[in-house]
Amino acid sequence: MLDLHAATSPEVKASIEKGAVAILAVGAQEQHGAHLPLSTDTVMAQGVARRIAGAIDGLLLPPIAYGDAWNNEGFAGTLSLSPDTLRAVLIDLGRGLARMGVKALVIINGHFGNREPIALAARALKKESGFPVMHLDYPGMERIATEICDSKPAAPTFYHADEVETSMMLALAPELVRMDKAAPEYPTFPELFGTGPIGLDSFNRSGVFGDPRPATADKGEVLIAGIAEESVRLIRLFLVSVD
Amino acid sequence: MLDLHAATSPEVKASIEKGAVAILAVGAQEQHGAHLPLSTDTVMAQGVARRIAGAIDGLLLPPIAYGDAWNNEGFAGTLSLSPDTLRAVLIDLGRGLARMGVKALVIINGHFGNREPIALAARALKKESGFPVMHLDYPGMERIATEICDSKPAAPTFYHADEVETSMMLALAPELVRMDKAAPEYPTFPELFGTGPIGLDSFNRSGVFGDPRPATADKGEVLIAGIAEESVRLIRLFLVSVD
Amino acid sequence: MLDLHAATSPEVKASIEKGAVAILAVGAQEQHGAHLPLSTDTVMAQGVARRIAGAIDGLLLPPIAYGDAWNNEGFAGTLSLSPDTLRAVLIDLGRGLARMGVKALVIINGHFGNREPIALAARALKKESGFPVMHLDYPGMERIATEICDSKPAAPTFYHADEVETSMMLALAPELVRMDKAAPEYPTFPELFGTGPIGLDSFNRSGVFGDPRPATADKGEVLIAGIAEESVRLIRLFLVSVD
Amino acid sequence: MLDLHAATSPEVKASIEKGAVAILAVGAQEQHGAHLPLSTDTVMAQGVARRIAGAIDGLLLPPIAYGDAWNNEGFAGTLSLSPDTLRAVLIDLGRGLARMGVKALVIINGHFGNREPIALAARALKKESGFPVMHLDYPGMERIATEICDSKPAAPTFYHADEVETSMMLALAPELVRMDKAAPEYPTFPELFGTGPIGLDSFNRSGVFGDPRPATADKGEVLIAGIAEESVRLIRLFLVSVD
Amino acid sequence: MLDLHAATSPEVKASIEKGAVAILAVGAQEQHGAHLPLSTDTVMAQGVARRIAGAIDGLLLPPIAYGDAWNNEGFAGTLSLSPDTLRAVLIDLGRGLARMGVKALVIINGHFGNREPIALAARALKKESGFPVMHLDYPGMERIATEICDSKPAAPTFYHADEVETSMMLALAPELVRMDKAAPEYPTFPELFGTGPIGLDSFNRSGVFGDPRPATADKGEVLIAGIAEESVRLIRLFLVSVD
Amino acid sequence: MLDLHAATSPEVKASIEKGAVAILAVGAQEQHGAHLPLSTDTVMAQGVARRIAGAIDGLLLPPIAYGDAWNNEGFAGTLSLSPDTLRAVLIDLGRGLARMGVKALVIINGHFGNREPIALAARALKKESGFPVMHLDYPGMERIATEICDSKPAAPTFYHADEVETSMMLALAPELVRMDKAAPEYPTFPELFGTGPIGLDSFNRSGVFGDPRPATADKGEVLIAGIAEESVRLIRLFLVSVD
Repeated sequence: MLDLHAATSPEVKASIEKGAVAILAVGAQEQHGAHLPLSTDTVMAQGVARRIAGAIDGLLLPPIAYGDAWNNEGFAGTLSLSPDTLRAVLIDLGRGLARMGVKALVIINGHFGNREPIALAARALKKESGFPVMHLDYPGMERIATEICDSKPAAPTFYHADEVETSMMLALAPELVRMDKAAPEYPTFPELFGTGPIGLDSFNRSGVFGDPRPATADKGEVLIAGIAEESVRLIRLFLVSVD
Repeated sequence: MLDLHAATSPEVKASIEKGAVAILAVGAQEQHGAHLPLSTDTVMAQGVARRIAGAIDGLLLPPIAYGDAWNNEGFAGTLSLSPDTLRAVLIDLGRGLARMGVKALVIINGHFGNREPIALAARALKKESGFPVMHLDYPGMERIATEICDSKPAAPTFYHADEVETSMMLALAPELVRMDKAAPEYPTFPELFGTGPIGLDSFNRSGVFGDPRPATADKGEVLIAGIAEESVRLIRLFLVSVD
Repeated sequence: MLDLHAATSPEVKASIEKGAVAILAVGAQEQHGAHLPLSTDTVMAQGVARRIAGAIDGLLLPPIAYGDAWNNEGFAGTLSLSPDTLRAVLIDLGRGLARMGVKALVIINGHFGNREPIALAARALKKESGFPVMHLDYPGMERIATEICDSKPAAPTFYHADEVETSMMLALAPELVRMDKAAPEYPTFPELFGTGPIGLDSFNRSGVFGDPRPATADKGEVLIAGIAEESVRLIRLFLVSVD
Repeated sequence: MLDLHAATSPEVKASIEKGAVAILAVGAQEQHGAHLPLSTDTVMAQGVARRIAGAIDGLLLPPIAYGDAWNNEGFAGTLSLSPDTLRAVLIDLGRGLARMGVKALVIINGHFGNREPIALAARALKKESGFPVMHLDYPGMERIATEICDSKPAAPTFYHADEVETSMMLALAPELVRMDKAAPEYPTFPELFGTGPIGLDSFNRSGVFGDPRPATADKGEVLIAGIAEESVRLIRLFLVSVD
Repeated sequence: MLDLHAATSPEVKASIEKGAVAILAVGAQEQHGAHLPLSTDTVMAQGVARRIAGAIDGLLLPPIAYGDAWNNEGFAGTLSLSPDTLRAVLIDLGRGLARMGVKALVIINGHFGNREPIALAARALKKESGFPVMHLDYPGMERIATEICDSKPAAPTFYHADEVETSMMLALAPELVRMDKAAPEYPTFPELFGTGPIGLDSFNRSGVFGDPRPATADKGEVLIAGIAEESVRLIRLFLVSVD
Repeated sequence: MLDLHAATSPEVKASIEKGAVAILAVGAQEQHGAHLPLSTDTVMAQGVARRIAGAIDGLLLPPIAYGDAWNNEGFAGTLSLSPDTLRAVLIDLGRGLARMGVKALVIINGHFGNREPIALAARALKKESGFPVMHLDYPGMERIATEICDSKPAAPTFYHADEVETSMMLALAPELVRMDKAAPEYPTFPELFGTGPIGLDSFNRSGVFGDPRPATADKGEVLIAGIAEESVRLIRLFLVSVD
């Protein structure tokens, strides 16, 4: 694996010549309650991306630390890129990787609001040059979370500052987690949720969805390892289609 | 100082209420020869930004790790945002900060090619909402470098992978510096330099401009401290005009 | 209800003065196998929209007959707007309705690929002028389909040219349905589905997902009535928040 | 002729293989006084387009129901696309048709304000891929109107809710015409007309230009047949240049 | 009158304080046969604009020397702005004039292809700030040309390198006219003219439409004086509506 | 040399066939104190461009009379294009020249604020088609000014309405210079200059930077001749790389 934060240009050149694939985490700067940092989605995505890069000897790019977290903008500290800007960032990076001769780009997405901009960037790159982009949204997370978690999510597949995310943060960056401030909240979703631009702060007080208290680093490690394993399996399938 | 990588939403809220100013480093993913990492400009800008944020009790944002490094794209590993994309990123973040009630944004720029996009973002934000943005390009660097460096830059104020940058990196992230690979190059600039889109790799072999060998962490510390001090002085002037 | 296809300007003026809400169906021009027309999504969305407009005395706009159906472009006849164009269309219409004094816009979406452009248009209109836009994706459909259908969908909530859609078309426009050509297909979704720009024609031969053969007009009527009823309930909630 | 509202994907495929040309009507949602519906321009354009498609065995696309009717926005019910959005819609559809292998696109324009966006879309498509687009603005209409109409237009070639349009609507969709509300208006055009963004409602009270009362379905049929015949003659010339 | 090519900033300031109106000629860089220069449309528009500015004591801006002359791009020397770029230029200038406190902008258009971009700029400026823009296309030209010309235009109101334009150029810039090379051409317009992006060079050999040989400076002076007089009359009407 | 203001289409055609290079001056409409006209930067750039075109038998294009002079907008008469619009203008013209078969474009820039838009246009044209664009910013000016001027600039390489510019204007267009109004001003630059969008009028009263009084036409001629000579030398180098 080559971490492009630490690597030098000659090292990247050699790695590309050997057919390396680029791995890019896309996170967010988004409120995660009183016990998790604003960088939670970035830390998690980069943690998973690093694990994957290690497994496939990939080029690990510096993560995108800002995503589209518009529905959490009612909480201080949330800072978004517009979906158009995020898409443009990804297209620029994809063009650069294609120019350099990198074989393909795998995007590890850590934030729900980034999904569509990422998918549109992948479509745009495919159309303009055929450059292959795969995007993964923590495959396997739901299955593993169901297996190992002691609490329930606030809504199906809705993991935000809960046992799942807190566990992963405890595994990746325990120094950024303040378990003493971890408190549960199971907000009632308004019936109109999903039918318009509704800020989460209109029905969620603490920024937490679910119960972070049962979180442990061990659970986090299981989640990360399982997601990475499933991701690697899919990436290998993807690379067959690229070659 | 509040580091938004580690901080939580309630902390940011409290900090904004006390009138905190946001500090954003803008770096680059750009070749820096065989002895410095691709992230050099980001590490340096964030290092200076952190020092400044400490001095003025600012909100330290996660850095922008990609800039416009088009003229180094001939070297593997350089990965750029287009100037329009970089501008859009900064405008989005500025809008978010203004929305949150942050008083002003200070941008610490670590890469020459980012200057114009940053300046244009500042103009745009001023025009659309009056949100005040200041941008600094390592004030005092040239003066200090002249005083303390043992080597000469490859061209006036052109510091790239040389004694200045290598010293700053030794002070900030010595684990990313490989002094054993540090070698000088004083390329001959083509007469047409600056008159068109000319890649640096057309006349620079190693990616180094100047001589990194005399670099030391102590010199780096002097540079960082001096730049931060001069930056803080200017920021205080700026804040007077904002209030 | 006022159907803007048939209405005159003075009628619209009177209706707006009474506080009417605009209803806009967004469909698609997309392949639906050999037994359903390319306009299926438009016909269905407009059928539901008309039912809703009748119930709330709304202004029924002419439907948008083209959506973003990129992943069916491998089949002849599918014709898409780009997501940016579709968003622009909706923003333009929203601005026009706001200018006219219409109280709010309810969008009845008939095609999955339109979701994000519609959501982004709603966000943009809210931000620029506060104009309220609600978007509905056939609420209740899944519940009713589970209750009344004799066949299973090809994937959860994936209804395309199957018993659900064919029933609704039989209820709305039987002259456009050719039951003699209705044939089932339960394609195997590739493991990489959802991880990149993958055309449905790469694993779906006929354009049908599921089994359209048990479709009846009666089932279609149940679906339409149920979806409309649930929509009206949500719209009434929405209008409370708007007033 | 294949009507893409009713046709299926396999039918379109077969039609394209036989070299079919696409026909697209572009209308408007625009006030037309108290006796004609807001959809008048769309109904007329689609009526003519259908006649043409029948004559040349073309692919009749669903019409674009919204155009740029900015200068009638002072009347309720008028709802426009911006010229840039309309152009984008047409470019998207043109790209889709080119991708599918359709030989050429003929646009039947039913609204004056659409002319430039249509022409620009045709230029753009020609430049980017050579895809041939022809646009027609009711050729022969002026000649026939002069021959058969009993009233005069409010200004040369200015037909709006008058005898010409009302006759065509009586021929195409008599159920949408309310002759009991048909009343003449011959507004005085301001001298500054055409020198700036002047709304028609600043000098036109009823939305009618001219006298709709002598309108008959027979006249409408003559107009439609004559326009279609002249259109077909020009399309045949165009197709010679395309082959 | 203040010619902004020659004027100083203090003079402009004083003129604006007295309520001056800005006059901007928009021309083209377009082939005009072998006897007229590429700048013909700019020279003519600026000549008329200067006459008007003199009559109303206006601020005469430097002309826009490039327009949208796409259909003459088959002839060497024709050089166009895209319609979007031309619109952007005019919007930028309008914004600047509004910011300065200029009361209104009158655009004197010298080239057919500029009409729509100019009209769209006027609409955009009105919508965003209410800044009033009037645009004139040589009012009275057709009437005067019919009265005084000895030759006929190649098509109604189609004046290009003919007696009309050559006369005006002889009056304005005789040194740029080469009457020894003036030769007539009455091209046959293709039946498809106006139905697609058709270059004029496909049916016009010399770049001349009509007969320039009867041109005289006296006729040109009559045209310029008449157009200016009619323009001034309309501008006075316009200014009443602005005040 | 062929001046495209005066030249005809056949002449341009012949010149291109001989391999002519296009020369385009980009100026500004910007305040230059009480003694120099708003067009100063355009007159100067076109004067230099004409000299260069004469030396290399180039195609002299009509100058761009508006640039990005945003920081002088506090003074009446300054009228800017946005940097994006200026870039678009240059890209359009570059595309047109490439289409015509012109070998290369040399841009003579007369205004600091135009530098980045020009550089970005050159990059864009190179990327999209390889069309070669060179841009020159008065090479040699600083050296010559240091040698021959009797006054000092207000800041290093900052020449604005001073001895340098006034001399060049006296050589090029003495009728536009009012030496009786020439007065010196050596403003104190604020410490924050260059760190944000700061208007020059916030610290400069008269619009003059430096001392225009020692200006003479002879000095202007030396400057123009020297700049043109150095420019021609560089252009010859550039053309070697293009061939």
